[in-house]
Amino acid sequence: MRARNSSTEQDAGPPRRTFTESARRAQIVDAAIAVIADLGYAKTSFAKIAKQAGLSSTGMISYHFAGKDDLMRAVVAEVMRVADEHLRPRIEAQPNASARLRTYIESNIALLIDFPKHLAALVEVLANLRDEGPDQFGYAASMDSIMSFQAERMRDAQRTGEFREFDVTVMVHAIRGAIDEVVGRARTDPDLDLVANGRELADLFDRATRNTT
Amino acid sequence: MRARNSSTEQDAGPPRRTFTESARRAQIVDAAIAVIADLGYAKTSFAKIAKQAGLSSTGMISYHFAGKDDLMRAVVAEVMRVADEHLRPRIEAQPNASARLRTYIESNIALLIDFPKHLAALVEVLANLRDEGPDQFGYAASMDSIMSFQAERMRDAQRTGEFREFDVTVMVHAIRGAIDEVVGRARTDPDLDLVANGRELADLFDRATRNTT
Repeated sequence: MRARNSSTEQDAGPPRRTFTESARRAQIVDAAIAVIADLGYAKTSFAKIAKQAGLSSTGMISYHFAGKDDLMRAVVAEVMRVADEHLRPRIEAQPNASARLRTYIESNIALLIDFPKHLAALVEVLANLRDEGPDQFGYAASMDSIMSFQAERMRDAQRTGEFREFDVTVMVHAIRGAIDEVVGRARTDPDLDLVANGRELADLFDRATRNTT
Repeated sequence: MRARNSSTEQDAGPPRRTFTESARRAQIVDAAIAVIADLGYAKTSFAKIAKQAGLSSTGMISYHFAGKDDLMRAVVAEVMRVADEHLRPRIEAQPNASARLRTYIESNIALLIDFPKHLAALVEVLANLRDEGPDQFGYAASMDSIMSFQAERMRDAQRTGEFREFDVTVMVHAIRGAIDEVVGRARTDPDLDLVANGRELADLFDRATRNTT
């Protein structure tokens, strides 16, 4: 069966969906996130997702998604949407670049506490799509866009003198690497003190960016 | 055929090997590194490694290694050996903790220039053994040991007042995460300026650790 959200429709912008269609898609994506987080990517199947979602068969999944790749793309998009919704208001509420940087780092780590299954599912999907091309279901492009925005704001803070001179591209990637390392470590160490890690990382990059002259 | 370096022998310490045996093993490991780096883990086979090593059949590989896992363990060990040999003398030659930290970071990034296939092979092997248990063929234990050593030396530098007070565990993991992020990015961006990235990262963590009071 041909799914409704084919790539052709996607190219023409998001398809219009009824409230019921959107709700059903969201229910399936949430179930997929839970199954991937619990069982890992390799053991995830439409059958297990249908069971998790309380559906009597996999037919409803096939109706809404063109295949496993299409569903995985929706999983990545949903995790990014939740992350954005969680981070953006907190960051935008800060009065200056230093406070925004601190909030960005601490809120990223806090995502692990508030949405552990979302991030576990994202890591599983990305790890298993490693060789599927550079864009990995929209994730790479989405992260590039976030990091370019961060770099531009850091340049603004350098112009005002709040931040010292440094290579903003290296800095945003170093921050990303340090956060991702905590995300990876949290998967194997359930006792990791995430709040303390977030605070220490925020201190670290505050020192690294601050203009002390 | 049972390979000579069984786990029983490994438990009792490294097996004694003749010069010829060691040379042959090294030749096979070098060929494996080249094939994994060029083709990726999934497409690597004993047949391709034998061809790369100039062997007429895979029999010689089976004679020296108990299987693919055993050979992969030797690949990881060889990459770690080369990295240690490359980094340790440079780091030990530095006069203080700040200079050692800078050299550690810059030399890690320089490894990408001097041993690109070694690091590409390591990343491939680690990525594909993600679910094989926490120790991933000795890599995790080896990295833990390196990071514990770094943390202890950072504590020494805090005691002498060269470094400020910070959580040394968070710091060594943040440094690792930032370096690994550059390693990952270099795989998809051949134009990445590695020397500049190393220098900027060294500046960043110098600022983050330095005692400015």
